Amino acid sequence: MATLQDLGVAAAINIISAFIFLLVFAFLKLQPANARVYYPKWYLKGVRQGSSRGDERGSLLRFVNLNYKSYLHFLDWMRDALRMPEGELIAHAGLDSVVYLRIYLLGLKVFVPLMLLGFLVLVPVNVTDSNIQTGKIFGTDIDKISLTNIREKSPRLWAHVVMTYVFTAWTCFMLFTEYKTVARMRFQFLAAEARRPDQFTVLVRQVPLDPDEPISTHIDHFFRVNHPDYYLCNQVIYNANKLAKLVKKREGLQNWLDYYQLQFQRKNTERPMTKTGLWGLWGQKVDAIQYYTDGINQISKEATVERERVLNDDSSKLPVAFVSFRSRWGAAVCAQTQQTRDPTVWLTEWAPEPRDVYWRNLSVPYLQLTMRKLFITGAVFLLIFFYIIPVTFVQSLANLEGIEKKLTFLRPIIEAKFIKSFLQGFLPGLALKLFLHFLPKLLMFMSKIEGHLALSQLEVSTSAKYYYFMVVNVFFASVIAGAAFEQLKTFFQQSPSQIPVILAGSIPQKATFFITYIMVDGWASIAADIMRIKPLIVYHLKNMFLVKTDKDRENAMSPGSAGFDTVFPQLELYFLLGTVYSIITPFILPFIIVYLAFAYVVYRHQVINVYDPEYESAAAFWPHIHNRIIVSLLVEQITLFGVFAGKRAAASTPLLIGLPIMTIVFHYYCKNRFEPAFRKYPLEEAMSKDIVDRATHPNWNIKTYLQNSYMHPVFKDSEEEMDEEGFDAERSTLVPTKKSSRSNTPAPSANGEESPFHG
Amino acid sequence: MATLQDLGVAAAINIISAFIFLLVFAFLKLQPANARVYYPKWYLKGVRQGSSRGDERGSLLRFVNLNYKSYLHFLDWMRDALRMPEGELIAHAGLDSVVYLRIYLLGLKVFVPLMLLGFLVLVPVNVTDSNIQTGKIFGTDIDKISLTNIREKSPRLWAHVVMTYVFTAWTCFMLFTEYKTVARMRFQFLAAEARRPDQFTVLVRQVPLDPDEPISTHIDHFFRVNHPDYYLCNQVIYNANKLAKLVKKREGLQNWLDYYQLQFQRKNTERPMTKTGLWGLWGQKVDAIQYYTDGINQISKEATVERERVLNDDSSKLPVAFVSFRSRWGAAVCAQTQQTRDPTVWLTEWAPEPRDVYWRNLSVPYLQLTMRKLFITGAVFLLIFFYIIPVTFVQSLANLEGIEKKLTFLRPIIEAKFIKSFLQGFLPGLALKLFLHFLPKLLMFMSKIEGHLALSQLEVSTSAKYYYFMVVNVFFASVIAGAAFEQLKTFFQQSPSQIPVILAGSIPQKATFFITYIMVDGWASIAADIMRIKPLIVYHLKNMFLVKTDKDRENAMSPGSAGFDTVFPQLELYFLLGTVYSIITPFILPFIIVYLAFAYVVYRHQVINVYDPEYESAAAFWPHIHNRIIVSLLVEQITLFGVFAGKRAAASTPLLIGLPIMTIVFHYYCKNRFEPAFRKYPLEEAMSKDIVDRATHPNWNIKTYLQNSYMHPVFKDSEEEMDEEGFDAERSTLVPTKKSSRSNTPAPSANGEESPFHG
Repeated sequence: MATLQDLGVAAAINIISAFIFLLVFAFLKLQPANARVYYPKWYLKGVRQGSSRGDERGSLLRFVNLNYKSYLHFLDWMRDALRMPEGELIAHAGLDSVVYLRIYLLGLKVFVPLMLLGFLVLVPVNVTDSNIQTGKIFGTDIDKISLTNIREKSPRLWAHVVMTYVFTAWTCFMLFTEYKTVARMRFQFLAAEARRPDQFTVLVRQVPLDPDEPISTHIDHFFRVNHPDYYLCNQVIYNANKLAKLVKKREGLQNWLDYYQLQFQRKNTERPMTKTGLWGLWGQKVDAIQYYTDGINQISKEATVERERVLNDDSSKLPVAFVSFRSRWGAAVCAQTQQTRDPTVWLTEWAPEPRDVYWRNLSVPYLQLTMRKLFITGAVFLLIFFYIIPVTFVQSLANLEGIEKKLTFLRPIIEAKFIKSFLQGFLPGLALKLFLHFLPKLLMFMSKIEGHLALSQLEVSTSAKYYYFMVVNVFFASVIAGAAFEQLKTFFQQSPSQIPVILAGSIPQKATFFITYIMVDGWASIAADIMRIKPLIVYHLKNMFLVKTDKDRENAMSPGSAGFDTVFPQLELYFLLGTVYSIITPFILPFIIVYLAFAYVVYRHQVINVYDPEYESAAAFWPHIHNRIIVSLLVEQITLFGVFAGKRAAASTPLLIGLPIMTIVFHYYCKNRFEPAFRKYPLEEAMSKDIVDRATHPNWNIKTYLQNSYMHPVFKDSEEEMDEEGFDAERSTLVPTKKSSRSNTPAPSANGEESPFHG
Repeated sequence: MATLQDLGVAAAINIISAFIFLLVFAFLKLQPANARVYYPKWYLKGVRQGSSRGDERGSLLRFVNLNYKSYLHFLDWMRDALRMPEGELIAHAGLDSVVYLRIYLLGLKVFVPLMLLGFLVLVPVNVTDSNIQTGKIFGTDIDKISLTNIREKSPRLWAHVVMTYVFTAWTCFMLFTEYKTVARMRFQFLAAEARRPDQFTVLVRQVPLDPDEPISTHIDHFFRVNHPDYYLCNQVIYNANKLAKLVKKREGLQNWLDYYQLQFQRKNTERPMTKTGLWGLWGQKVDAIQYYTDGINQISKEATVERERVLNDDSSKLPVAFVSFRSRWGAAVCAQTQQTRDPTVWLTEWAPEPRDVYWRNLSVPYLQLTMRKLFITGAVFLLIFFYIIPVTFVQSLANLEGIEKKLTFLRPIIEAKFIKSFLQGFLPGLALKLFLHFLPKLLMFMSKIEGHLALSQLEVSTSAKYYYFMVVNVFFASVIAGAAFEQLKTFFQQSPSQIPVILAGSIPQKATFFITYIMVDGWASIAADIMRIKPLIVYHLKNMFLVKTDKDRENAMSPGSAGFDTVFPQLELYFLLGTVYSIITPFILPFIIVYLAFAYVVYRHQVINVYDPEYESAAAFWPHIHNRIIVSLLVEQITLFGVFAGKRAAASTPLLIGLPIMTIVFHYYCKNRFEPAFRKYPLEEAMSKDIVDRATHPNWNIKTYLQNSYMHPVFKDSEEEMDEEGFDAERSTLVPTKKSSRSNTPAPSANGEESPFHG
């Protein structure tokens, strides 16, 4: 176990390395050549313009910042990041991003008072007792200021009981106000939002097939009868997955063509050649530009044929449609009600906004969804508890002797002593590292197989899977030694009354481990995040090999998004650590608080300057965050049961029973009180927005507005293609989908207009 | 353990006693004097008329049936009971009753094939093995034909594995078709139903108070804005609980007045006297008729004052209202949608039909409901697991020595040896018997405290509580020896993997106990039920002392209802027993089948001739029944795990894992597929009924129809009272609520008219 001093050294190392990262970041960010890496959001907003105008100046100045003064203010970005008010930030980056940042703030609001109370009340109580000095158990300095130092049956435990109640009450109170605020922000955001197609549109699934009429007419008839006053039109969905594949393939070829054209332009000597085999490494040598132009033409033809087929073939129409209504009220009614006797046909739900639709999964038959969900649940379970088995297997394959036998010519190199020891230490670790690196992608892939229809749902679902993985394989795996499947055995073979005892036995001892974990995984990862190393490299590579025009340069930017699928689980894990240790070892709290505060500043900067969210779900993820924190509280309480029972605090242990009951009641109260705000759209809100709309735009033609709002991006691109001619038109198909629908981006006013009927 | 012979004797005794009951019933039923006890349903329908016309005949004939021929056909009622076709029965007794009877049929459909397979396949397999003959374990004849007789590691166990899958598949298949049928029947019933106020009405709770306008206007404004095209009117609810109490009190006094008036009429000598104290036993002696007439007048005055106060005092208006719409479509929309941002105000749900409303609970503040639910859940938990403690305490109080000490004058009687031993055996049992007798009433009281708003919900909720009680205190208490709270300890301190082992250890041995239980509790109780001893006595007592007019006689009938709150749990317990033992001891199945068949005939007779349901919920209870049977399957499968593990069937045990997975998937499939049919009203159904209605009655004035449809029964009575004058008008207030709203009884046609838009 580490002493306080050890931890101090570790902290110093981590702080210094973080500081170095920040210095490098400050330097890189000031170079104009990197502007599109560190400020892409402003380019997308049109506030910053392409640097091509600077061509007249010395080419050096275009890339390097020589103004020494600007280096003096290298930490100003922190101040700037905190300066933008919340309302403006919502308008700038959307509600999702703002609420995401509020999670860090919530953490600070919860943990700072807990830390103060912990250090003012619990630490003095702990440090003046003498469980460790009496030699009964071994312990470090950290144990001396934690609950471990309290002797058995000590009346001092009453302080901890009272503090547990205070901590739980405070956490619940903060959770409550936060849930309330987020729900209010969501409604304000939705009310202030500009007109958007998804406000009028419902996604209808499981449209039953009618042999006598085409699907679109059938939908028309059904809704004309059952929603006569509100139904407007419907947009049937085509199974365009094959077409989308072709378009994507063409995009890849186009990149190669660009590359070779640029090479040819620059060198201007001989036409570049390529080989026709895999990755241009094998096969016949041909003229590269000609080869790729031919390829693109070929695929374009195929795509046109496929496009015609999809549009004209009835079998490629899916039994799914976006059905639009004359008013938001009509859509809200249709989305919330059951249409027919059979609850497995004519299923209605709110349509995701067009950018948010995950088109591929619209073709998944509805009846497969349950099976898919079951299958993926099983797979995730196996992955969480048994992932270590294939990793170990790969590690065993990757041992040096095996490699030497297979690839004998490598023997002299491997046998060199230094290299051998390096490889022996490195190779097995690499397998695990690679696995962990690709894990989020694997989980996202699983979520896609599950059949979610919106990107926002995909991210929430992936984040849940990743959270379970982290809780089992980081938290419980550290607490209960052994691989995850051994934990499973432990829990299954022990009686339920033993679980608190098991947790209590090891959780207090693992505090120093988790403190180190927070520093290495938390502090360092944020500092690395802000440098954006991967986007930096990719951007410069693209710039070098692919970029011809300003538009290309814009496409080369990859602002990315916050990546809720990986960020939420990490945050939730820190909440779990903070909550579980808040009573037992309050010493962990400052480390978490530093993490949260630092992360808040950094990600606020990123949200303002970098990230460009793919969709806007108006904070639909909040209930998940809330629920996970509630679970953290319950884990804390179960652990404390065990700890108190271990201290033989017969009088105070039963008092703890109130805590989980209180927490669960609080959870259900919040669920009833706030969760509908994230699932349903109240009729009053819909009606008041309708009324305002009707008053301000009495002659607005809603039908033309909605007609093609939900068109598969490949058709949208093709349509643009049809309009224009020649090569440049062809290029435009490569503009990412996201971009072509940017016109739909919500631009809510900061001070969300209140509904006229509601407080 | 009982042998086959013992069981045969027990069966014979039970069959003979059941037969005697039936004979007595056949005799009693043929006496005209009992006609209103055994055929009340026909009187209520107006098919049979009051026997007062028979006065001209000899008075003996009015009471006794002297036609010997009719006694020869004493079992004809069974044939008659089975003769009425289902469609007619729905029209006669409502869908609830018909679906209730279908549960018995479902039991037969499930268990008869299971029994046949069990006896054709499993019994031969079991009886030819020799686990018991080898002397390894002791066993009776019944054990010889059960799974107990299979030796360890025997390949014969494969037969049981296969049969388990066959049984589960068959049960699920029957459950599926039944759920489907019941859902279809429900929709047909709703579609065919006559116009009823609840089709147009939504119950709105948590109406926020507005200081500027009265509650009714406030509701008006809200719905005029948010449902402009459909809103019709609203009926605010008054807190008339005090008034209802007064009316009830007056009813009691009226009964006494009737009694004394009748005595005075018959004797015609002196005016009857009564004492003013408790139950007329103590206090001053006064003229009875005068005393009660005064009392009634006094209370009538109080009631009038209270009535005025309630109607004019704003504070007695509850924040609850029945809101009616112009069309069923409008009501369906309002009931299924969220109205405002705050999901704790303006809560809408389907209004129960007027007869079904439990008015008292409308005044329960909504925010108390969660607390009440929590409180009652805790209370039910304590009751189920610890009821034995207060019962034991009362038993200890009721011991003879204690009584002797307190009431010394009883000593000589008690000391008599025969009496002493009788009392010592009897008194402790009495406490338990009394408790069990009053248990359903206690549970109903608890459900009322929970705050349910409809009688149908109250019965379903009570039946759930009673079911848990029976499962724990009959099933598990027999399986795991010891009181319920000791079971709790067992389950909590054992590891989850031990639970199947515990169950497997004792369930097979308890088969004979449960067979006896089925005979005594099941067979005998049905036979007793059909005699209607309590209603018989009560009716004749009332007839003797209270009945003056034909109307009084009608009121003296107490047809009652099936009592779903106690009948469902019993049935579900038998399903549990049948399912759990179907593989282990198929010998139990014939006993259950006899019970189900006998009960089906008897209760079909009762439904046709006796019961008069208080409400019609269109089989809303079905999902509960279904879910309990699913739970039975899971208990069976967990037990089998233990049994197979005990037999060391290493190869076949893992195969059983498929069963619970299959069952749970099936459960969720059914839940998604059918449960919405019992919770929501599809818009297509509403719309098609609206269209038909509009076509057939274009000029129907819906507003006058709905205006006062949801009036608290005490006001309805008072209104009638206002219309008439004098004593007889006063009497009419005593007509039970149920009666005065009978005009609303649904009278659906048997061949439910299909919706024009749906298959």
